[in-house]
Amino acid sequence: MNSNGIIAVVSGFAGTGKGTVMKKLVEEYDHYALSISMTTRTPRPGEVDGREYFFTDEESFTKAVKEDKLIEHACYCGKYYGTPREYVDKQLQNGKDVLLEIDIQGALQIKQRFPDSYLIFIMPPSSEELVRRLKGRGTETDEQIKNRLKRAGEESEGIEKYDAIVVNEDIAECASDINRLIEASRFRPSHNEDFIRSVREGIRSL
Amino acid sequence: MNSNGIIAVVSGFAGTGKGTVMKKLVEEYDHYALSISMTTRTPRPGEVDGREYFFTDEESFTKAVKEDKLIEHACYCGKYYGTPREYVDKQLQNGKDVLLEIDIQGALQIKQRFPDSYLIFIMPPSSEELVRRLKGRGTETDEQIKNRLKRAGEESEGIEKYDAIVVNEDIAECASDINRLIEASRFRPSHNEDFIRSVREGIRSL
Repeated sequence: MNSNGIIAVVSGFAGTGKGTVMKKLVEEYDHYALSISMTTRTPRPGEVDGREYFFTDEESFTKAVKEDKLIEHACYCGKYYGTPREYVDKQLQNGKDVLLEIDIQGALQIKQRFPDSYLIFIMPPSSEELVRRLKGRGTETDEQIKNRLKRAGEESEGIEKYDAIVVNEDIAECASDINRLIEASRFRPSHNEDFIRSVREGIRSL
Repeated sequence: MNSNGIIAVVSGFAGTGKGTVMKKLVEEYDHYALSISMTTRTPRPGEVDGREYFFTDEESFTKAVKEDKLIEHACYCGKYYGTPREYVDKQLQNGKDVLLEIDIQGALQIKQRFPDSYLIFIMPPSSEELVRRLKGRGTETDEQIKNRLKRAGEESEGIEKYDAIVVNEDIAECASDINRLIEASRFRPSHNEDFIRSVREGIRSL
């Protein structure tokens, strides 16, 4: 069987706590590397270049896209977001599983480019709980919450395109579920093409 | 999330030990029920009606197909094989996961009828090992072994249509792998349609 790393995409509505779950995953299991996206949006207070994001301008971003240096990119609220190829390649070569925390536009690009990537959608326990969490943050206006819910409604259209859904009721449990799903994803035929081919050709040559 | 049982299909070449692995699964984990197929082939020495198979004649088999009492059926070497619906329904209602040990013809029928079924293909560690195991049985002629390998070559065409492959190197390990895969398969969107719908509609109604 194939022991190469997996590209695992994790998406989810704002307010489902996916950032916290990703942090937990990387802390708990040392075979994960968390990819850092490139973006043209301005840093929020406390965000550090090269930690939360690689902050850049539109010209450099467009250049990176043209030179095929991003394995996916998407536009959201007039700002660009993308995943630099170099980091992902390096981590996969080191035998790591690479986690991408990106939205559905990017997720579907990844699936198309890397058919053995694995897409996970983090769900809130219920729509009521999602609202409670968004309001509980206390950092957003009613208008912003309304916008996030509108976007969540749109994003929810694509859930069936993911390989798995996970409910985030408890962070540790959710991280453990995701880890077990990624482990199981190594058994997919799309991740074991060389092995399947070798057995098939072996049988036929007998 | 959906706590209903899963229909898990297990296929594999003759000689991969899938029968032994299935027995191990049922022994080790009490949430599995092993479906018994109906067949028109004659019982082999030691086989008991209702244990290995439900043995029947062609007329009764055809009648069962016509009355939609089989959820899949296939013809192999001039003999019919099928899975009675009643047992599967009953076990699913009891919250069990139902294991079907059937070939690829049947597996694809199951996938079509039950989109949230889960298909597993048991692989030998290598083609050489498959031959060793077939010869090691000591029960078959060279001609029979040749036929089994020919059929394995044909069956191997369909492996990519399965959800997962598992290598049977060690019976206990293989059974444990299969159990973990079936557990992970509960997280697929196709197994959680009602939950996804309820969250989606909940968000939209806000």
